[in-house]
Parts: sequence; structure tokens; C-alpha cells
Amino acid sequence: MYKVKVYVTLRESVLDPQGTAVKGSLHSLSYGEVQDVRIGKYLELTIGKSNRNLDGLVREMCERLLANTVIEDYRYEVEEVVAQ
Amino acid sequence: MYKVKVYVTLRESVLDPQGTAVKGSLHSLSYGEVQDVRIGKYLELTIGKSNRNLDGLVREMCERLLANTVIEDYRYEVEEVVAQ
Repeated sequence: MYKVKVYVTLRESVLDPQGTAVKGSLHSLSYGEVQDVRIGKYLELTIGKSNRNLDGLVREMCERLLANTVIEDYRYEVEEVVAQ
Repeated sequence: MYKVKVYVTLRESVLDPQGTAVKGSLHSLSYGEVQDVRIGKYLELTIGKSNRNLDGLVREMCERLLANTVIEDYRYEVEEVVAQ
């Protein structure tokens, strides 16, 4: 069994209105030292044994559903979970 | 200048309807090996020099605004950015 952590972030060139709103809120809470906020998604997938190559599988799931690659980048980490 | 990566996730005991929906979509795309999906937020904060202790600052921002600690957990990583 594998635990896969997927991070989906907006590409650098894409405006992040949600991040801008959070930055505004932090400033009004007097955290003026915050210069920038970017917001993305964090997904934890639990994946069982499969005949397919795990990297290929995760990449395909990201491209097809989890990330919109026109405006988003993704990266992931794989952790093997040992059954107890 | 510091780059702080904040991960906000739902507590284990809290239902994640968004994750369940994504799992359903993955299954209907024939990724049946996916056993569970949990969805959280990922924030990248750029924080300038401050007189305050960085850990205290980040923790306070998380508790007050970025995470709802009743139903969410958070963790963070700090990276120092060297000006070029």
C-alpha cells in the first residue's frame, strides 16, 4: 500500500485571487511582514497494490483529474506503507 | 526573507466529502486501486524580516486565520530565502 502526497499549485504566471485575499486579511490582522501568499491544494491518496507502474498511475491521475495543467503545476511524493 | 509552506488538513475523525467525491471520480475513471483520498490546503507564505519570532508568528497566523483548529490540523516548514 502506498500513501501519495500530491501538491497542486497555480503556475507562477497565474494570478491567485484567493491568495491575495488571504494576504489582505493577514495584513488587517497586523501581520504586515507577510509579503505574498499563494494557495494550492494538498491531496493524500491511499493506493493499494496495482499491476501498473505507480509513477505512471499517479501522473495520469494528476493530468486527467487532479490538476488543471493549463494553469496548475503538480508534484508528488510516494511513501510506502507497511501493513502491520 | 522566509518562505513558509503551510499544510492544512482535516482531522482524521472529520468526514471529507470533497475527498470522497474525488475518490468516486477516480474510480469512475477506472483507477480502482485508489482506496482513500483526503484533501487539504497548501499555502506558501513569503515573510519579510520581522522583530518577532518566526515560529510564533506562523503559529499565530495559522490559529487565527489559516486553519480552523476545531476540525483541521496544520503543520509547516520554514525555508530561508537568501537575497541574490
